[in-house]
Amino acid sequence: MHIRKQRLLTPGPTPLYPPALHAMMAADIHHRTEDFRKVYRSTLADLKEVMGTAHDVLMFAASGTGAMDAAVSNLFSRGDKAIVCVAGKFGERWAEIAKAYGLDATVLSAPYGEVVAPERVAAALEAEPATRGVFVQASETSTGAAHDVRTMGSAVAKTGAIFVVDAITGLGTMPLDIDGWGLDVTIGGSQKAFMIPPGLAFMSISPKAWGFADSATLPHYYFNLKKEKKSGDAGESSWTPSTALILALAEALKYVKQLGMPHLIENAQLLARATRAAVEKLGLELFAPHSPGSSVTAVKAPPGLDSGVIVKEFRSRFGAVIANGQGSMKGQIFRIAHLGYFDFADLFAVIAELEIILRANGFPVEFGTGVAAVENLYSEVAVTPQAVHA
Amino acid sequence: MHIRKQRLLTPGPTPLYPPALHAMMAADIHHRTEDFRKVYRSTLADLKEVMGTAHDVLMFAASGTGAMDAAVSNLFSRGDKAIVCVAGKFGERWAEIAKAYGLDATVLSAPYGEVVAPERVAAALEAEPATRGVFVQASETSTGAAHDVRTMGSAVAKTGAIFVVDAITGLGTMPLDIDGWGLDVTIGGSQKAFMIPPGLAFMSISPKAWGFADSATLPHYYFNLKKEKKSGDAGESSWTPSTALILALAEALKYVKQLGMPHLIENAQLLARATRAAVEKLGLELFAPHSPGSSVTAVKAPPGLDSGVIVKEFRSRFGAVIANGQGSMKGQIFRIAHLGYFDFADLFAVIAELEIILRANGFPVEFGTGVAAVENLYSEVAVTPQAVHA
Repeated sequence: MHIRKQRLLTPGPTPLYPPALHAMMAADIHHRTEDFRKVYRSTLADLKEVMGTAHDVLMFAASGTGAMDAAVSNLFSRGDKAIVCVAGKFGERWAEIAKAYGLDATVLSAPYGEVVAPERVAAALEAEPATRGVFVQASETSTGAAHDVRTMGSAVAKTGAIFVVDAITGLGTMPLDIDGWGLDVTIGGSQKAFMIPPGLAFMSISPKAWGFADSATLPHYYFNLKKEKKSGDAGESSWTPSTALILALAEALKYVKQLGMPHLIENAQLLARATRAAVEKLGLELFAPHSPGSSVTAVKAPPGLDSGVIVKEFRSRFGAVIANGQGSMKGQIFRIAHLGYFDFADLFAVIAELEIILRANGFPVEFGTGVAAVENLYSEVAVTPQAVHA
Repeated sequence: MHIRKQRLLTPGPTPLYPPALHAMMAADIHHRTEDFRKVYRSTLADLKEVMGTAHDVLMFAASGTGAMDAAVSNLFSRGDKAIVCVAGKFGERWAEIAKAYGLDATVLSAPYGEVVAPERVAAALEAEPATRGVFVQASETSTGAAHDVRTMGSAVAKTGAIFVVDAITGLGTMPLDIDGWGLDVTIGGSQKAFMIPPGLAFMSISPKAWGFADSATLPHYYFNLKKEKKSGDAGESSWTPSTALILALAEALKYVKQLGMPHLIENAQLLARATRAAVEKLGLELFAPHSPGSSVTAVKAPPGLDSGVIVKEFRSRFGAVIANGQGSMKGQIFRIAHLGYFDFADLFAVIAELEIILRANGFPVEFGTGVAAVENLYSEVAVTPQAVHA
């Protein structure tokens, strides 16, 4: 018998930033007061700053899917031609939303683990000049692969279509020049690199996208971008805001600003590189070797071993909650997350635990070799002692 | 630049048990109400249960030193003959308290890292039959060494003296049969294996020790064992209790009962064994190799390297707060703690971090070998998957 602290190590919800959690205790505040308006305004401003955009940024009491819904229902009309990139479960979600609202969508599919090449998007745009929207995931959380939204964005920018990017696990894990690369709509969620619980969705909207809002005819009520923009300018939300989460976000954004968004991204990239080195050293295969993102690393279970067993033993042996595959990938892969409040100490432990689990299930590994790969990477990139952050 | 979560890994304060922390939020409660009396009574009962004693157990709003003071000022008189075992900083504290209250103390010293042999206590008792008290640390936190309080206890039991044991880091890290071994006074503190912040001290008192309270003449006021016992029987504390900490303790004790005190002890012992195996594998020397306790493992810094550098780099590189040596041992040793809410994930990370720090400071280590020693021990003792505790 031994102590196993429960550690949430999934690609969302991600580990919580303690000062942000503590800040939720101050939620005995009314949202229609100047006190709260001050918080709301500065949080939106900070969000805009860390997203690095001059576009408007809105916030919703919703999960990320709510903002995906809002983008379609506010910016499009029934029958609008659209291109949907599908390379995993969240690409499929774009396709489902497009279908639910009656868009005329062309789906560009890639097998799970691969990505949709930007050339395919450019070709599809050329084939259908009336296309109004292109939908994609910056980071496909279900597979760990990352799309080349920069190249896609420049293709879309030359057309009359807008580029709608689910960056829910992309923000804080990869460079995203929202304004420079033509990301007309960029969507984020609180429970990812923002280090707080689920319940808030974010969206940036370009001037080009605002133009779409004027002519769009799909019905919507709760998600109303124009109304929300007007409310936000007055320091309020249209409906009752999720005050506790906004207080948490304010605190988390302070930390992200202090760290610097580029460093938050670098942190995820470093941990992802170290994870890839470690699992390959242990003889495992990466699930998305060609376009690996840094939000999460999907790893194939060894032949004959259900990835669910690995996930279950992480939990039962060590209290670590890691992610299984989703949808058809369940049982095939397990996923080690890096986005947000993860550090090397997390990774040292996860890899040591993986070594034990693999050996206990008959897969030969030499203890310490995967961890050594992480230590080597840490040392090679010359990560040096610095002033301490909380 | 990378994220370094701050992790408190010292031998007190120890890592906090999250549900206990959350429980502190309910401190908008008045202490002279039946609501609180219910909590106070059941907390005292649970404390007694996990300490495994039929003796009275009292609780004080104080640090552990307060209870040490209380034992002397309530149970002795100026000029009383006493034997004080000193094998580290906390042994010295017993000597200081004895001096402050004018006891006539014989000090039995052992060098830091060693312990006072029980035979020396028996011999001293024989040499001075008028001895009224024997003072010792069950676990000497400053060096990581543990005293043989069982053998000492049986020697004291044959005399008219009482055996006063500072078990502040002994409780929850070593078997202590308080009643069976003749531990007349056993002292604990909240910020150790009890997994909550500092501020509460505990004390068990045998019938033999209560007899001493009747004849003792030293002055005292805040620490009044008889008054506290009477108050406790009525479900109250003599003075204003530390309500938030008591609510936390109630929650932590639920967890300790669920885990089982023997398993909490086993957990610390297992982590201590694994730590010893790892640091020896890395070519480091243990500071207390002959009587290693399981509350904390003190390790000598390699020749030419100040242990303060190691401690500092744990903090600056990884956010890990570990303990330096205390007093004259500062700079010579560093200490890896195991008491309370520590698990293997903590240890995997600490050892990987130690490997990196040692190599970065010119001490040759092969990455992963220390971690492998921990993994080997985990596997050898056949720690199997179990139902998950929070």
